[in-house]
Amino acid sequence: MAVATIDWKGDLPGRAVILDQTLLPTRVEWIELSTAEQMREAIKSLRVRGAPAIGIAAAYGLVLGVQGFEPDEPGDRTAFARVAARASDELRSSRPTAVNLAWALDRMNRRLGREAKLTVAHQKRALLAEARAIHAEDLATCRAIGRHGLALVPDGSVALTHCNAGGLATAGYGTALAPLFAAKEAGRKLSVFVDETRPLLQGSRLTAWELGQAGIDATLICDDMAAAAMREKRVGLVLVGADRIAANGDTANKIGTYGVAILARHHGVPFYVAAPTSTFDLKLADGSRIPIEERSSEEITHGFGRATAPEGVKVWNPAFDVTPHELITGIVTEHGVIERPDATRVAEFLAQSAAPRTTPRSTPREESA
Amino acid sequence: MAVATIDWKGDLPGRAVILDQTLLPTRVEWIELSTAEQMREAIKSLRVRGAPAIGIAAAYGLVLGVQGFEPDEPGDRTAFARVAARASDELRSSRPTAVNLAWALDRMNRRLGREAKLTVAHQKRALLAEARAIHAEDLATCRAIGRHGLALVPDGSVALTHCNAGGLATAGYGTALAPLFAAKEAGRKLSVFVDETRPLLQGSRLTAWELGQAGIDATLICDDMAAAAMREKRVGLVLVGADRIAANGDTANKIGTYGVAILARHHGVPFYVAAPTSTFDLKLADGSRIPIEERSSEEITHGFGRATAPEGVKVWNPAFDVTPHELITGIVTEHGVIERPDATRVAEFLAQSAAPRTTPRSTPREESA
Repeated sequence: MAVATIDWKGDLPGRAVILDQTLLPTRVEWIELSTAEQMREAIKSLRVRGAPAIGIAAAYGLVLGVQGFEPDEPGDRTAFARVAARASDELRSSRPTAVNLAWALDRMNRRLGREAKLTVAHQKRALLAEARAIHAEDLATCRAIGRHGLALVPDGSVALTHCNAGGLATAGYGTALAPLFAAKEAGRKLSVFVDETRPLLQGSRLTAWELGQAGIDATLICDDMAAAAMREKRVGLVLVGADRIAANGDTANKIGTYGVAILARHHGVPFYVAAPTSTFDLKLADGSRIPIEERSSEEITHGFGRATAPEGVKVWNPAFDVTPHELITGIVTEHGVIERPDATRVAEFLAQSAAPRTTPRSTPREESA
Repeated sequence: MAVATIDWKGDLPGRAVILDQTLLPTRVEWIELSTAEQMREAIKSLRVRGAPAIGIAAAYGLVLGVQGFEPDEPGDRTAFARVAARASDELRSSRPTAVNLAWALDRMNRRLGREAKLTVAHQKRALLAEARAIHAEDLATCRAIGRHGLALVPDGSVALTHCNAGGLATAGYGTALAPLFAAKEAGRKLSVFVDETRPLLQGSRLTAWELGQAGIDATLICDDMAAAAMREKRVGLVLVGADRIAANGDTANKIGTYGVAILARHHGVPFYVAAPTSTFDLKLADGSRIPIEERSSEEITHGFGRATAPEGVKVWNPAFDVTPHELITGIVTEHGVIERPDATRVAEFLAQSAAPRTTPRSTPREESA
């Protein structure tokens, strides 16, 4: 993907630049943010969205939150720590489901802890370096997911995806879309059915746009057409992203993902989740513990600028659902594919991934299940 | 339902009056139609929609098409027959999937055949009488569906429905919603999850509105939330309508119905189709022969008055899908419930229904499956 979702401009003090995803696909506009509050608003209102991308955004947001701090006395590190903690808390509470947000802030805070004895100026610089590292690693991670997922997308593949787990949801290149971009780069023929993904239409607004930019054949459908597409259009695999994965492989992702997983199972279509290992939350034994954000009813009743439902109607608007691991064929990570994930296989895979790299961590698969 | 979907105003010449469903729920407006062309446009653009309702609409449309005809010579019945045939053909081609449209026109034409030797004035009068009979019978049919479906909706039921098969889709009272209205009238507590039903939002615009008018507790969800609702909200049954049912029970209904049937099966939730027996098309052995209307891509890309997808994106927009009979728990008709429908049970049930009424045609069920 040639389009940058997020970037850092200048040195210190600097600004975060994000592509305002609420305006896509009709307008492609970047906005500059100079405070942590602005970043919090941008995350909350989905100007920047996608689990990996909001991790990066929160990391830069923390830099924005501390970069203006000047200690009254040169040695005053306590006040700096307070400012950093407040900015971190503010950013952390912007959205509840994606674990990458907390993961990135935890990593930033650990870095801060390691540098706590150095000067404030040094600590600011360390935070920017850490945010940049998170950013750069995410791009490398997405490329690795693309390589590991490539075998799932043989020539002539017909894939289906839900929501947007593309370059826009990450530093670039995406998670669920990464194997598709990699297949395209490898010269393979492929086509993709894109669920529009109500209520906020990340599929039609973002994924269809991204695939179009990459020259990949994409067909937009409404979410309620996915079953018919699987039955009639020879869909060969489903690829989706993840916002949080429990220790047993249960996966929270955009609302509708669970339904797609059931449809895939019914039609014998393999269902893959693609996500960096930072998406795992091993503190949670299973998906029932994952907090699910509920958003405002207006997203459904007035989602397109005019009322499409009776006034005062009761609405249920969960932004995510949990797909139990039994429905997941495999989880594609930057270290390889966890086949038929369950608590044992996830634990073994992650232990092996964390071990020093002496042998290849995965065997690329030659055929999809 | 207190709201009339369709009516005939005056005698002959008269006008058809329809509630313009494209304006709901923000505006409740009736429009008067005085020509068959206007009725064809109203059906094609979904001002009047729902399989039973467009059957009635087509019947009145045929009356509109012939009422202005005055023979040059008093005995000229041939020219009249030509005018009637042309109007009938025009109306028949307005939408392809719902069989009730053809069923109503066939019935009107049979009536015409029986009266062919009488005066043109008499024939016009006979057509209006036949249209009124179709209209009145549909209302009685819907009431009977409500009675037969009542046992499926015990006190405390949580139902889920897709699209609109309510009073608006019929002469009144509905098919899928009829058992819910009947349960409400019987003083039972119930609540209903309403799929918004993309692309044209018949669920949010029409069903949520109708249920609200009837004082039934309704919760609007996006189509991609139905799976999570079944898992988390104790949905106890699914009720949907039908546009055409093949001889083996395979059922064409609004796009998305097939997916809901799969989700229901996965969660062990009974899945009922409710439809008058006029919806059966016994000429078709199975659902693969049912013609599926594909509609314009703008319904998906610009469905709410502004672009929500990239310009030029490829779109697949089937208006219906086919649910195989294996996924259907029962078909609720005006003569009773066909349990676990297949070719044999459908044939036996319809033969019994067509037989002279000497014994009750069904045993009301006391409990849902």
